[in-house]
Amino acid sequence: MYEDRILNPELRKLVMSAEEAAAKVKSGMVIATSGFGTGYPKAIPTALAESKHATGLTVLNGAARGDRHIGAMAKAGILKRGYGFQYSKTMRNTINTGKVEYSDLHLGQFVDKIKRGTYGHIDMAIMECSKIREDGGLVPTMSAGISEAIAQLADTILIEINEDLPIDIEGFHDFGAPEGAIVESPSQRLGVDYIKVDTSKIAGIVMTNLPDTDLYYPEATELYDKLSGNVIRVLKNEIASGGIPEHFTFQSGMGVVANLVLVGLVGQGFKDLKMYTEVVSDQALFAVREGIISEVTSTTLDITPIGFEDLLRNIDFFKQHLVLRPLNVTNSAPQIMAQDLVSMNTAWEADIYGNINSSHAMGVQLINGLGGSNDFARNAKLTIFTTPSTAKDDTISRIVPMVPHVDNTEHDVDIIVTECGYADLRGLSPKERAASIIENCAHPAYRQQLWSYFNSAVELCGPCQTPHDLSTALSWYGRYLETGTMKEQG
Amino acid sequence: MYEDRILNPELRKLVMSAEEAAAKVKSGMVIATSGFGTGYPKAIPTALAESKHATGLTVLNGAARGDRHIGAMAKAGILKRGYGFQYSKTMRNTINTGKVEYSDLHLGQFVDKIKRGTYGHIDMAIMECSKIREDGGLVPTMSAGISEAIAQLADTILIEINEDLPIDIEGFHDFGAPEGAIVESPSQRLGVDYIKVDTSKIAGIVMTNLPDTDLYYPEATELYDKLSGNVIRVLKNEIASGGIPEHFTFQSGMGVVANLVLVGLVGQGFKDLKMYTEVVSDQALFAVREGIISEVTSTTLDITPIGFEDLLRNIDFFKQHLVLRPLNVTNSAPQIMAQDLVSMNTAWEADIYGNINSSHAMGVQLINGLGGSNDFARNAKLTIFTTPSTAKDDTISRIVPMVPHVDNTEHDVDIIVTECGYADLRGLSPKERAASIIENCAHPAYRQQLWSYFNSAVELCGPCQTPHDLSTALSWYGRYLETGTMKEQG
Repeated sequence: MYEDRILNPELRKLVMSAEEAAAKVKSGMVIATSGFGTGYPKAIPTALAESKHATGLTVLNGAARGDRHIGAMAKAGILKRGYGFQYSKTMRNTINTGKVEYSDLHLGQFVDKIKRGTYGHIDMAIMECSKIREDGGLVPTMSAGISEAIAQLADTILIEINEDLPIDIEGFHDFGAPEGAIVESPSQRLGVDYIKVDTSKIAGIVMTNLPDTDLYYPEATELYDKLSGNVIRVLKNEIASGGIPEHFTFQSGMGVVANLVLVGLVGQGFKDLKMYTEVVSDQALFAVREGIISEVTSTTLDITPIGFEDLLRNIDFFKQHLVLRPLNVTNSAPQIMAQDLVSMNTAWEADIYGNINSSHAMGVQLINGLGGSNDFARNAKLTIFTTPSTAKDDTISRIVPMVPHVDNTEHDVDIIVTECGYADLRGLSPKERAASIIENCAHPAYRQQLWSYFNSAVELCGPCQTPHDLSTALSWYGRYLETGTMKEQG
Repeated sequence: MYEDRILNPELRKLVMSAEEAAAKVKSGMVIATSGFGTGYPKAIPTALAESKHATGLTVLNGAARGDRHIGAMAKAGILKRGYGFQYSKTMRNTINTGKVEYSDLHLGQFVDKIKRGTYGHIDMAIMECSKIREDGGLVPTMSAGISEAIAQLADTILIEINEDLPIDIEGFHDFGAPEGAIVESPSQRLGVDYIKVDTSKIAGIVMTNLPDTDLYYPEATELYDKLSGNVIRVLKNEIASGGIPEHFTFQSGMGVVANLVLVGLVGQGFKDLKMYTEVVSDQALFAVREGIISEVTSTTLDITPIGFEDLLRNIDFFKQHLVLRPLNVTNSAPQIMAQDLVSMNTAWEADIYGNINSSHAMGVQLINGLGGSNDFARNAKLTIFTTPSTAKDDTISRIVPMVPHVDNTEHDVDIIVTECGYADLRGLSPKERAASIIENCAHPAYRQQLWSYFNSAVELCGPCQTPHDLSTALSWYGRYLETGTMKEQG
């Protein structure tokens, strides 16, 4: 049995039930799991959540989403601390209610911080794989994330082999690149397609057959079409002015705008673009098949079941064009700088001076997390942030006087795009930025109100670089909570 | 004449008065100058300020301080835009009053942005040098900054040769390093000690004899001694726990705390440390002479006349230990990451969650600028920010509920040190960070008030990651302006 999935006969003896594997986890352990959206272990976390024998766990994960993974463990109340990006509603609630202590970070620094011991020594790594080689090398499922680092650092490794994925996904990954080696082109390979491990650390193997099915995309609307149209306009202008080459390399964040920009590239004459990014969506795969994108580096495929089907149908084609690398390669400053990247990320909201809040609703509630947005925004050649100008039927303006939480500072933002237009902030002073953002990005329903704020701040402050009226700068949130809209009455 | 300073006979013919050279600058030009604290041209800017024939100038400068440089031009009203760090009181006032449009940036990205054309095409570079070689190569005075890039990018170059500096300062600089080459040790040399230029671009040479005399250090007080003592304590603990090696490499920002930390290293058993930094002070030179620091990379010497004298007396010794590199090398992310750096910078103020304001007094008035603080904070292995816990006789707390301007986000700050103690924030959730900062860093006079804010924010917000009461988060500034103190009455 499992001869095609576990090529090393000795390791076959370690196959056990998820419950038996989970029993090896003890209270208070620091555990780290594979997975970045996709590719996370499912059976062992679910078993841990059901048995609840081990509590007070610290869990490290590149990007955690799954209900059978971080969601199950958070719901079971067995977590004490969590680190890494998360976009699980259950985990988010657990963090906001203070049941789990969570510390956000630049994802590009996660592996370095893990290695430095910032989160303690890793007792156990739990990895989803599609195969174990004869030499014990691990072939992960469709993400790379922090897997290589945690397999090497953990005392003990538990493995789930997911037979839902065909064995021929082997060949997408690139691990073990020489330290400091720079990726010269997104499809270049620098290492091997498996993770080298000390097999004596493997303590259990669980066979599973569980698809990654919890991803969906929100519906596109006319607003998002306009927004992505404005991003395309920025890109075309930038090519025309010589700011970026015709076949530029870009990063695209997660979410509906990012996906629509990819769709928007179709039929616009773009060809042979390169993508150096953290996450690949269905739309990016589509653009690869259409020849719009010729090479992709990513740390994960965050795709729907439909995208997965497409990937598997054309697996040899995609292996030629797509490389999955560790998070500390995709998101590292030197790598990003070397790509001369166009970075496109979604802002939760922006202020009139160009500061971006990416992580906190109303300044206080964690949404998802910072993720890699500032890894890319900070180190790209051209940095674009997108946001609809309003939310909730225009009762919320996404352009505000002052963001109540800053994840990307004004120093890291070149262009802000909404469905109304875009503001090119490069080289502008704060006052010039305010004028450009209010005129080009704010929704007409809030434009006058923002001008009023700005003008009265200028008057109030006297000589200053960045006018603010600190007594009203954050008042829009209170007004929304009290009256149901950020709009001033009367 | 000048045979020892201008080795190329053809170039000797270009010697002219400062007024003649200044006449070549036309209204509306983009000019870029050498200098980073020290090493800026003096005669031509002064002549420009006096004649006022050219107005509406854009000036790029690595770090501008001099009254005979940025100060003179700002005062004369001939500037329209300014870019780069500035710590000139005159320039600051001109910016705050809106007479000059100024856009702050991460200094480590300045050269890249200049090359990308963010500030327009450079019409003219004005450089202070100590010598021009036979081949036209320029030997700058005691800074590197953006000099290499602007000499290569400008259409025209004007040169001041400052005979106040001895000719044997040649040999401190390292220019023309191969692209992407990583500095493996701070005193390693990768290029040549002069700037290669196209001599046909040199349009005028002015002989000067003007010392850099406008630097002073504020007096140290008991408070600063305590603060630097706490920094030393952090460093010793970190060595003891294996977090940093005994002979660690560090960066140290400008200012009295940074300097006192250097003094504090004396007599504490530190030896053979390495410094990879943006600015070297008198105290750093002293530590080099004492053997506490064995190797230094910096982009400038920001030293007093006394420091200069010491440097010149021991010039051959210092040339062995100290290399001046371009700003885009000293402050580049890949270089800083490769040094495994301990970064120590001064905060203007910090909030209870670890966000740092480095640039704006009361959130609105530009102080100096962001400088390289986040280049280092972001990419160092260990990031320390220091600030006295209070200012102005305790009427201002430097630990506040929310900073009104964020330059270094909570994601880029490991440890905050005040004279009261220090908070190690690594791996802590926002609520844990607040507790640690209030207890360890805040002044006793403000501790209870900060706890009150935090506790009422927790109550008000309900489930949330980062509790804030947005209606009072920034109220401490208003209270100070109204009552003369941030302290709550009664």
